[in-house]
Amino acid sequence: MSACAGDKPLASLSGLLPDWLAALNRGRRHFDSDAAAMQLAVVAAERNIVEGGGPFGAVVLGPDGQLLAVAANRVLPARCSLWHAEMLAMALAQERIGSHDLGSVGPCSLYTTCAPCAMCFGAIPFAGLHRLVCAAATEDAEALGFDEGAKPDNWVSALETRGIAVTLGVLAEQGRALLQSYQRAAGAIY
Amino acid sequence: MSACAGDKPLASLSGLLPDWLAALNRGRRHFDSDAAAMQLAVVAAERNIVEGGGPFGAVVLGPDGQLLAVAANRVLPARCSLWHAEMLAMALAQERIGSHDLGSVGPCSLYTTCAPCAMCFGAIPFAGLHRLVCAAATEDAEALGFDEGAKPDNWVSALETRGIAVTLGVLAEQGRALLQSYQRAAGAIY
Repeated sequence: MSACAGDKPLASLSGLLPDWLAALNRGRRHFDSDAAAMQLAVVAAERNIVEGGGPFGAVVLGPDGQLLAVAANRVLPARCSLWHAEMLAMALAQERIGSHDLGSVGPCSLYTTCAPCAMCFGAIPFAGLHRLVCAAATEDAEALGFDEGAKPDNWVSALETRGIAVTLGVLAEQGRALLQSYQRAAGAIY
Repeated sequence: MSACAGDKPLASLSGLLPDWLAALNRGRRHFDSDAAAMQLAVVAAERNIVEGGGPFGAVVLGPDGQLLAVAANRVLPARCSLWHAEMLAMALAQERIGSHDLGSVGPCSLYTTCAPCAMCFGAIPFAGLHRLVCAAATEDAEALGFDEGAKPDNWVSALETRGIAVTLGVLAEQGRALLQSYQRAAGAIY
């Protein structure tokens, strides 16, 4: 990263993280299955709902299953539309490795409790990810009134064409339960 | 914003801004034409190239032509793939107004020196913008090797369907000149 020599230090994203989410990001942890990684994303989303955030969680794992980041939807608490769970997880993981290209440390995977919206879909290839794993489907979110944006119908093949493997439906029931739980609590849908 | 009561203070994005860009964001300024607003985005991009960033600039104006944010592509300096000029401009404008919804203060416009990539395209509706103004075209960026992502071919009508007016080709020559200048300097293309 010689191009960065002399630049300011990284902007810390820690101000975006409530204490409970910062705690989930501390230390070195490894995950040896998709279900285990997704379960952490579900846990983050569950706690996030209680804490005033949206019903979405995300995790980035490094090539050896090392946890690089766990995040949740912080749009309302952070007053910023960018901070979908996936976006925050990618940014935190990049801060952790010190590069805009997650692929520079080897194949990294993004786990999300709901299939990505148009923004997060567009962001995934630029982040240098090699794999995307989703729980609930786009249709689950839209059925509950969430706006997934103008995502192309062929979004899975569009990612695969770019060398990003996609796995759908891992802990799908838990992903849907998050959305339903949020709707029952009459949370703001955005 | 009662939903935010008790939350942590906003994460400052100031750490993402080099001094020269922070200076451009200070004070109250108004713009009374598209060309004048786009010219500021061009100036930000020109300076950004010299300072090690990408050849893209963006501006957000409030409903009365008030400058809410000016930004440039900080992907390499910030080591984060999210910080395209448009994304940083939207986030800075939202921090300035204290809401994730720019529309909450009235119609806001985003000016960008190049048509948005797939990520920024997806982010625009969620930011609450009412208008998008572009200089260079998607094809200009792609012709120089920049990856605009898997953006739908009908991206303009997809935004217009969502109530976002789109104006193309404002200071198009200047927008293209930025890309060419960057390419001549053999900057990293990402």
